[in-house]
Amino acid sequence: MCLFCKIINQEIPAKIVSENESAIAFLDIKPVNPGHSLIVPKKHYSTIEDISEGELCAVILMLKEIGGKIKDKLGYKGYNVSLNNDPVAGQEIPHLHFHLIPRTSDDGLKLWPQSEYKGSKADEILAKLTN
Amino acid sequence: MCLFCKIINQEIPAKIVSENESAIAFLDIKPVNPGHSLIVPKKHYSTIEDISEGELCAVILMLKEIGGKIKDKLGYKGYNVSLNNDPVAGQEIPHLHFHLIPRTSDDGLKLWPQSEYKGSKADEILAKLTN
Repeated sequence: MCLFCKIINQEIPAKIVSENESAIAFLDIKPVNPGHSLIVPKKHYSTIEDISEGELCAVILMLKEIGGKIKDKLGYKGYNVSLNNDPVAGQEIPHLHFHLIPRTSDDGLKLWPQSEYKGSKADEILAKLTN
Repeated sequence: MCLFCKIINQEIPAKIVSENESAIAFLDIKPVNPGHSLIVPKKHYSTIEDISEGELCAVILMLKEIGGKIKDKLGYKGYNVSLNNDPVAGQEIPHLHFHLIPRTSDDGLKLWPQSEYKGSKADEILAKLTN
């Protein structure tokens, strides 16, 4: 079972930002900026070619919802959405996932400069996104 | 009127990969790799927060369709999907657009290393994607 399936099955903990029947979103543990989220179908699909149309719509609508919150709740002025589809494109976990990457003008984003949440920062971010 | 609205209104030519009532896809004129496409809603929306749910689904389903073709018709093993949402995230044209970036193992992609189509290469790519 892949890492994200274990998260979906609650075998591994994650900081869940949103969840419905078809999709789930949780904080990336190595965020570019705080609030960096992964939006994932609940069923295991490797790539965007594999997923059904209905489930793909559910995933992108959850991303839209969280994008609004990234601005409204966290005060960011914008974000990147990125999908690495297949290993040649940098996909590491073989379960389709969109990155939602909040941006600041001085974060120096190249492709994936990763940092880590310190102390209770991840919980503070999660609370803002889920209230 | 923005650049992409002019393309949609046929005031500026573009190499159209796919088109329906809600969405249009055309080749990026400065591709990371040949076949790099932009998938765009026909109505003008700046960001993913602005677009309606139905139109967003139409855009992502067109992207799914073209992604399959990028593999089946062009022989790529994978691709990145990227959306720069707002200027802080690198958005240059203020009209929502997803990049679909075909990848090779040796293309050295950082964020946007751009190249240009030479000779009739863009037409050859377009023909493969639209047949």
